[in-house]
Amino acid sequence: MSRTPIPDPIFTLTTGPVDAYPAVLRGLSRPVLYDYDPAFLAHYEAVNEKVRRAFRSASQPVILHGEPVLALEAAAASLIAKGDVVLNLVSGVYGKGFGYWAARYAGEVLELAVPYNEVLSGEAVAEALRNRPDIAVVALCHHDTPSGTVNPANEIGAAVRAAGKLLIVDAVSSFGGMNVLPEACEADIFVTGPNKCLGCPPGLSLLHVSDAAWRKMEANPDAPRASMLSIVDWRRAHEATQPFPFTPSVSEINGLDAALDLYLAEGDEAVWQRHALTAAACRAGIKAAGLSLWAASEDIASPTCTAVRVPEGVDEAKLRSAVRERYGVVVSSGRGETLGKLIRIGHMGPTARPIYSLVAVAAVAGACAALGVKGIDVGAGVAAAMRVIDSAAA
Amino acid sequence: MSRTPIPDPIFTLTTGPVDAYPAVLRGLSRPVLYDYDPAFLAHYEAVNEKVRRAFRSASQPVILHGEPVLALEAAAASLIAKGDVVLNLVSGVYGKGFGYWAARYAGEVLELAVPYNEVLSGEAVAEALRNRPDIAVVALCHHDTPSGTVNPANEIGAAVRAAGKLLIVDAVSSFGGMNVLPEACEADIFVTGPNKCLGCPPGLSLLHVSDAAWRKMEANPDAPRASMLSIVDWRRAHEATQPFPFTPSVSEINGLDAALDLYLAEGDEAVWQRHALTAAACRAGIKAAGLSLWAASEDIASPTCTAVRVPEGVDEAKLRSAVRERYGVVVSSGRGETLGKLIRIGHMGPTARPIYSLVAVAAVAGACAALGVKGIDVGAGVAAAMRVIDSAAA
Amino acid sequence: MSRTPIPDPIFTLTTGPVDAYPAVLRGLSRPVLYDYDPAFLAHYEAVNEKVRRAFRSASQPVILHGEPVLALEAAAASLIAKGDVVLNLVSGVYGKGFGYWAARYAGEVLELAVPYNEVLSGEAVAEALRNRPDIAVVALCHHDTPSGTVNPANEIGAAVRAAGKLLIVDAVSSFGGMNVLPEACEADIFVTGPNKCLGCPPGLSLLHVSDAAWRKMEANPDAPRASMLSIVDWRRAHEATQPFPFTPSVSEINGLDAALDLYLAEGDEAVWQRHALTAAACRAGIKAAGLSLWAASEDIASPTCTAVRVPEGVDEAKLRSAVRERYGVVVSSGRGETLGKLIRIGHMGPTARPIYSLVAVAAVAGACAALGVKGIDVGAGVAAAMRVIDSAAA
Amino acid sequence: MSRTPIPDPIFTLTTGPVDAYPAVLRGLSRPVLYDYDPAFLAHYEAVNEKVRRAFRSASQPVILHGEPVLALEAAAASLIAKGDVVLNLVSGVYGKGFGYWAARYAGEVLELAVPYNEVLSGEAVAEALRNRPDIAVVALCHHDTPSGTVNPANEIGAAVRAAGKLLIVDAVSSFGGMNVLPEACEADIFVTGPNKCLGCPPGLSLLHVSDAAWRKMEANPDAPRASMLSIVDWRRAHEATQPFPFTPSVSEINGLDAALDLYLAEGDEAVWQRHALTAAACRAGIKAAGLSLWAASEDIASPTCTAVRVPEGVDEAKLRSAVRERYGVVVSSGRGETLGKLIRIGHMGPTARPIYSLVAVAAVAGACAALGVKGIDVGAGVAAAMRVIDSAAA
Repeated sequence: MSRTPIPDPIFTLTTGPVDAYPAVLRGLSRPVLYDYDPAFLAHYEAVNEKVRRAFRSASQPVILHGEPVLALEAAAASLIAKGDVVLNLVSGVYGKGFGYWAARYAGEVLELAVPYNEVLSGEAVAEALRNRPDIAVVALCHHDTPSGTVNPANEIGAAVRAAGKLLIVDAVSSFGGMNVLPEACEADIFVTGPNKCLGCPPGLSLLHVSDAAWRKMEANPDAPRASMLSIVDWRRAHEATQPFPFTPSVSEINGLDAALDLYLAEGDEAVWQRHALTAAACRAGIKAAGLSLWAASEDIASPTCTAVRVPEGVDEAKLRSAVRERYGVVVSSGRGETLGKLIRIGHMGPTARPIYSLVAVAAVAGACAALGVKGIDVGAGVAAAMRVIDSAAA
Repeated sequence: MSRTPIPDPIFTLTTGPVDAYPAVLRGLSRPVLYDYDPAFLAHYEAVNEKVRRAFRSASQPVILHGEPVLALEAAAASLIAKGDVVLNLVSGVYGKGFGYWAARYAGEVLELAVPYNEVLSGEAVAEALRNRPDIAVVALCHHDTPSGTVNPANEIGAAVRAAGKLLIVDAVSSFGGMNVLPEACEADIFVTGPNKCLGCPPGLSLLHVSDAAWRKMEANPDAPRASMLSIVDWRRAHEATQPFPFTPSVSEINGLDAALDLYLAEGDEAVWQRHALTAAACRAGIKAAGLSLWAASEDIASPTCTAVRVPEGVDEAKLRSAVRERYGVVVSSGRGETLGKLIRIGHMGPTARPIYSLVAVAAVAGACAALGVKGIDVGAGVAAAMRVIDSAAA
Repeated sequence: MSRTPIPDPIFTLTTGPVDAYPAVLRGLSRPVLYDYDPAFLAHYEAVNEKVRRAFRSASQPVILHGEPVLALEAAAASLIAKGDVVLNLVSGVYGKGFGYWAARYAGEVLELAVPYNEVLSGEAVAEALRNRPDIAVVALCHHDTPSGTVNPANEIGAAVRAAGKLLIVDAVSSFGGMNVLPEACEADIFVTGPNKCLGCPPGLSLLHVSDAAWRKMEANPDAPRASMLSIVDWRRAHEATQPFPFTPSVSEINGLDAALDLYLAEGDEAVWQRHALTAAACRAGIKAAGLSLWAASEDIASPTCTAVRVPEGVDEAKLRSAVRERYGVVVSSGRGETLGKLIRIGHMGPTARPIYSLVAVAAVAGACAALGVKGIDVGAGVAAAMRVIDSAAA
Repeated sequence: MSRTPIPDPIFTLTTGPVDAYPAVLRGLSRPVLYDYDPAFLAHYEAVNEKVRRAFRSASQPVILHGEPVLALEAAAASLIAKGDVVLNLVSGVYGKGFGYWAARYAGEVLELAVPYNEVLSGEAVAEALRNRPDIAVVALCHHDTPSGTVNPANEIGAAVRAAGKLLIVDAVSSFGGMNVLPEACEADIFVTGPNKCLGCPPGLSLLHVSDAAWRKMEANPDAPRASMLSIVDWRRAHEATQPFPFTPSVSEINGLDAALDLYLAEGDEAVWQRHALTAAACRAGIKAAGLSLWAASEDIASPTCTAVRVPEGVDEAKLRSAVRERYGVVVSSGRGETLGKLIRIGHMGPTARPIYSLVAVAAVAGACAALGVKGIDVGAGVAAAMRVIDSAAA
């Protein structure tokens, strides 16, 4: 194994790729089976079944063999038919970005947007749907990771369902870390990935598809087929008797299998609870240390990612460098419009454990102080985070 | 780790997914780094450099983050411009299949085909190019795995170059197992994957792209951009200073890194030699055991895959089941037109070692005998394979 | 990871250290826990319980933290009291060797020996015990690995029990590969290791200790205490509430845990059956190839190790070198008196699968032929091994 | 892999077994080679050579195949001859404990002791040697881990050398984490293990042996031979041409190989520096949080272990439980006389990185506060630790 001269960080507290669970790393190192070997076919079916249980759904999920941008592009290409009017809900960079894919396939794309530190409401969506009854598809980015804010998916889903429209939900960085489930939010296509809150490396997408979405995609002559971008090709691929459209990513499936075993054994509510507590401690610590949260109000801040406003006068890249060089901690930058304005601390999978919030608060606050930011109090920050942790233990 | 009740096979002697090297499995289990972490950026650049060295090329390769069908579809979508006349060379199922992708993007697709147990010649290609000077792009599947036969890539490449056309070469299952290199065969886009002769799991594609191909793709308004199918988006992604178009498959890169270290340390010619010897021993054994090769002549049989004709009256699926159940050995079936007519023994990566040919010959011949095929002589088969191995040792 | 320039072999078909199961290798790579961490204490207790189930015993086993020679030396030092008369049963080098340890602690050591290609009988042991009623302890090497022969442990155990003596059984290389169980053979101390038929690396010993043996050891003032050689110190170490005498080998315990999961899931009788079949196929193949077994009769040949007589005029070291260099296969040499006279093919753990017998027969026979031995027929050997395998499948 | 219901801790900040480096875990999962395979023999020789380089010694080290208590017992048994007068230096529980082994083999054991929170001096040792010129062997526990204090090894070694005596140094928990080297401290037998500062699991011992020690051991008729406790049996075992006295622990050697690669690549002084900085930050944090160090003065506190006095009225076991249950952090208890009086935070191998000191300080201080200790200030503790880290970065 050759190595670069740059040492690995000590803590990867990012929003993805995230630190993977040790059991997932061991899963990745399982022997590689031939995809048509009966043992692999049974294994693939079993892993799909575990995804289904994690989705708390009665219907069969789909696994696509690329990281979730594949699934999102494929969802746009498959579900949006020529001429469709699409309502794209925008509360951040990723929501905005989906509009570009939607525009490639739709007749018209409407946008309902809020500032990138706020979130949408079910009422606003309902109104938009009343204003334009010709809307066919609504697209929602549940947790817009570059902002660290969470939209009310179930409320919005109810509005979309009431209007009889189809809904695409990007829950890539929220599923597995909080209570967001495909059927509860009435998603027709629900996209997530194992590479965030499930603690796997990037390389797969997990989809829930409603009956209505299957019907529309299968009827859509422009939906990709015989393509990497196809969803319909994979509809029955989980069945041991069906062929794979192309070779599945065997090792990633093995890693996912290990991650789902952990998730199901711990219990989803317990997993969500530790994500929430870690984020709560982190937010308390960041504020007490003298820094500001990006989210306009704390109740919309994500339990899987804490976005911290970069103090005025600080270069964001230098801040992340200082965090890494001084303390060995890696955090995420913003993206697009939020790039340079915030840094993000991930609470996903193995790092969604409260004690990590201390590390994050100390490292970020310490680096700010080192860069000359006034009024930083590392001790107060850590103490505040500890109080949150301790209050949960009491 | 939950497991299915079907036990793993003992030997996976397939044509992909293949058995992975132990060092690759350990590579897959390395901690997952954030893709923008400086250590990962340097690592990614270093892995690209190793691909370049393995390609024996001066120009920078491209890694795409899906198994090689992604790269082939992307090559068709990117290099074939609207209205192009494409000459698709067909000596098997995969070559034929590329024509469907080509047709999606081209103005016209011409096909130059031979029976699926024969191969093309440079002369035939040169003639086809003389007949239709309006051809813009030629597509070649070097090793048509479902047939186990190898086209003369360098000879065909020379003909295409002489005519001034662009050439796409699918070397997915041959690169790394025999002497086929992007520049030697004058490929403008050369596609391979780590999941065959390099002994990795599926999940990545490796591409060489010529300057002419870059020029054409970048000038092609229909070439995918902001898409999983884009090649141009990734042109500079290997540079540590450039962003990734989307999240790379971190763990697969770690596995590839380990595989390239093995390949470069052993030396490509040594690796090719053991693939060749394993296949030669296997062919000798198969014939001496009383079975027939699929390839019309042995000189076109692949050093990375031995296709064995299914004896008359034998059900191919039952044959593979018998091979697995009696001896714990997994071999590959045919695909499409060759499905049911042949089985394939892979000699790729870690299984491209001569001793495996004994296992393969004994298991396949033994299963045939068990299914009632007359005239099978396992002992003669193994003895013949041994003579080939021994002659190399002398 | 630095590597030596000598490439790893392809197949390790030895009698120990043996090829480990992939799941064991993954077990070894589990995070290392503090030995007094509650999770490790519970884990250690659980692993002990799995050993107990594998022993099919009601009483608590003991794990010692060194490879089985530690347990054998410790057994001699602990159970043999000053002045004891010991009957050492000798059918090979390891049985003979135990006598040296016995002599260090005993008053007198009697030896009941047979030629090293034969085995002892219960009747002979009974007679020896009748002749010398002052014998206190009997020691038996069940499977004398350097000879590849198996003594009738249950029969001998019954004779010892009838005489009311204590019995030490070395079942290091037989337990887990055949039907030998501590209580069935009436062992007072039964020693085995995970590094043979359980498919783990060397580093631990597993012991069954009878109540009578505990009583004698605890009453023996010379039994090691506060020593690496102590057994009594570890009597209660499996209890989560008890301290460890010294730090246990955490990673080896993790590997053992994985091995026991495999063993118990497959079912001991199924495991024994595949060891037996592999050895039977191997013996048939060796003989048909024109070579000779070491064992005086085939019914005493071990199901976990096939000892093959080195043909006259052949240098044993050169033979093993040829097996490795030509075919990439590693087999074991003899030891002590059998060194140079035989080579040994292991059938232990993951290599106790019938198909490996073909590899072994072909490689050993091929190397003999290459060294000029006359009358070798590789094909006949492999064909004979196949017939045994096929007969079991029928 | 079956698992217990007790979840793994998040951070193992213990004094051994310690958290292992990820590369070591991958090393442990390498395929198991036969010990007499040429590739393993060369590997074993290469690993020995790396130990030699880590020891900065010209002479060949010895690896024993059990955790370091084996080596310490073996050193006592081998180097102390019948009738020898031994001077045992005692500054803690482990130093005291060696006296029991010494007494087993010596004619007389003298003890030079200090309170268990102080350390010895070269002058005191020199004086003791002047008082009893018949002393043959001196034994020193360099870092008495249960006290977290470090004796001046080089100064003591000089005194012993000046008097012409033999010196046994237990550097188990200090070597690799600070500047202590066998020849610099004039050790005749220097014992350490990979399972502390090198970041491996327990299971091996590493020894330096001087020429004088070899001479005495080889001349000592009572030195163990043909025993697990033998050192002399292993003198030449590193040579590829020599037999192993018994089977080496193959996987542990693979783990050690990976650990030594890390250690030598990082550079010993850099490794020592991060151990020192982590400990310094931890001590500053502990004090500022309102807790007390065990060591009588900070200059004798170990860079690899910070012993913290348990506040009055606090139950030590409850304190460690609270640290684990509230924060997922595992720390070590005391041993023997120090049990109940202190807890120990390890800074060894991968956890010897300054940022871990924050976690330790916060967790220990937080748990004390939760148990009702007055005057605890977590924030002040973490802030003080941060200042130490920041001062090193400046």
